[in-house]
Amino acid sequence: MTRIGLDMMGGDYAPLEAVKGIESFLSDNPTDAHLVLIGNEPEITPLLASYKIPVSSYSLVHAPEIIGMHEHPTKALKEKQQSSIAIGFQLLATGKIDAFISAGNTGAMMVGALFSIKAIEGVLRPTIGAYMPKENGELGLLLDVGLNADCKPENLNQFALLGSLYAQHILRIDNPRVALVNLGEEEGKGNLLTQAAFPILKENTKINFIGNIEGRDILLDKADVMVCEGFTGNVLLKFAESIYDMSLRRKINDEHFARFNFEIYGGVPVLGVAKPVIIGHGISHASAFKNMIAIARRMVDTHLTDEIEKSFAQS
Amino acid sequence: MTRIGLDMMGGDYAPLEAVKGIESFLSDNPTDAHLVLIGNEPEITPLLASYKIPVSSYSLVHAPEIIGMHEHPTKALKEKQQSSIAIGFQLLATGKIDAFISAGNTGAMMVGALFSIKAIEGVLRPTIGAYMPKENGELGLLLDVGLNADCKPENLNQFALLGSLYAQHILRIDNPRVALVNLGEEEGKGNLLTQAAFPILKENTKINFIGNIEGRDILLDKADVMVCEGFTGNVLLKFAESIYDMSLRRKINDEHFARFNFEIYGGVPVLGVAKPVIIGHGISHASAFKNMIAIARRMVDTHLTDEIEKSFAQS
Repeated sequence: MTRIGLDMMGGDYAPLEAVKGIESFLSDNPTDAHLVLIGNEPEITPLLASYKIPVSSYSLVHAPEIIGMHEHPTKALKEKQQSSIAIGFQLLATGKIDAFISAGNTGAMMVGALFSIKAIEGVLRPTIGAYMPKENGELGLLLDVGLNADCKPENLNQFALLGSLYAQHILRIDNPRVALVNLGEEEGKGNLLTQAAFPILKENTKINFIGNIEGRDILLDKADVMVCEGFTGNVLLKFAESIYDMSLRRKINDEHFARFNFEIYGGVPVLGVAKPVIIGHGISHASAFKNMIAIARRMVDTHLTDEIEKSFAQS
Repeated sequence: MTRIGLDMMGGDYAPLEAVKGIESFLSDNPTDAHLVLIGNEPEITPLLASYKIPVSSYSLVHAPEIIGMHEHPTKALKEKQQSSIAIGFQLLATGKIDAFISAGNTGAMMVGALFSIKAIEGVLRPTIGAYMPKENGELGLLLDVGLNADCKPENLNQFALLGSLYAQHILRIDNPRVALVNLGEEEGKGNLLTQAAFPILKENTKINFIGNIEGRDILLDKADVMVCEGFTGNVLLKFAESIYDMSLRRKINDEHFARFNFEIYGGVPVLGVAKPVIIGHGISHASAFKNMIAIARRMVDTHLTDEIEKSFAQS
């Protein structure tokens, strides 16, 4: 049975929203996945009881420490071995859980993913993506969104394959269209990085590369996987998040603008590491936790990391 | 008297919208600036008459050729010496006009600005900026937005000064706040470029550097001038433009989202070249032409290029 580890202390609204997310996940998926809940036992137990989470559906692992949202990632992970994040990675590394989810300190989650779990062989740099809501109701995957601020052309090529496998197995998109985010559509346009990456992507037979897309194409249905270095991706993602905040403040009631609420997608997976790790947004509410559990389960069920391993072994 | 050169053939809706823009400019500024209209005389003359543009307010310079929106910039400029853009730059270079405006082929405008007019001494790379509408109703200036896809730290430092002088003289902002667009707020965050640029910006006594801003801060009132390399700036600008298009399609009626219509700001100046050059959006309508004429006049009246020259001479 799939065992999904969940940090109960991560995020601004933990553990309450995590518990509500669990309730919601279980009510939709009654017989699925065993949950391994990591956090402060005395605080969590009464909450689980009051939300009537069936005792058979979870195990509780006590973690007396918490890594705060603003602590220095490496320092905190090293010093707080009894924190929910540190324990989560220990359980994942030793095979006691099959996936690990946290909406806690993003930096600590990244450090944990890269150093406790390690990259899949052949993957030069694991990456982190974000969903982009397209106007037609579908989702695109933009990556990298901040894990790799400086990239080489081959990194972008690997992000393309990682994103493509994720789109195929998790988003269930056949033969996902992969595009390079660029400042012009024609081949030859771009900065030094994208100019060098284009021919490499074009020759990559493992992906369905459709060429360059511009900033204006990101929310249209041009591509399923959109590749860029983490600097541009991060600025773009945070800009898009601010559009949603603005639409809330301005009381814009629109179905599509509502999909700019990145929280509804749960978290984003770290792609290219040997086991499923999902990093949630700090402001995660119940639906985000529910969605993260569902994504983690799907990553385990589809053996995504094995698929990535196979794909990279062939190159 | 200020002589402002206007390419009558540039843009998707030229020359009609250019003529309407002139009418609107003159009705608000009756005794101001002499306009030098460059374009196909037989086509323009009847339009000017039918919109009752006073003959005393303009001179007409016949340009029998047009550079199309999709022609190769350098090739077209070289081969079409009798095009409105080529003639405009000849007039500007020889001092027969004080500023030149076109909503035509952007590449040709950039090439013309860089090679007919040349950079101000000390300016390593001229830049092109775009307005960002802030929620409080003010405008911020983001630069570079595509002229310089690859930058060195010193380029960003110069964009900061160029943008700062523009904000001061044209946007009338005292002591404009300059920020570096980055993926984190703290000093030390960033890619190699922004990490190296930060200390240089911090030591620049000619600007009011307030530190890093993230993608989510661009539309807030954190900074007046926001600096990045042209790749990120271009992707961001086009993404923002697409948000506006989306809000139109979704019939969102909101005062602030309406300000995402980048056309209303007219064009963007090429900063760092020896004379005022303004590049309009291809889809410019009357209000864009009107605003471009107003910006050009203000650039001439405030002696912005002289101010830039002085500022760069001191360094």
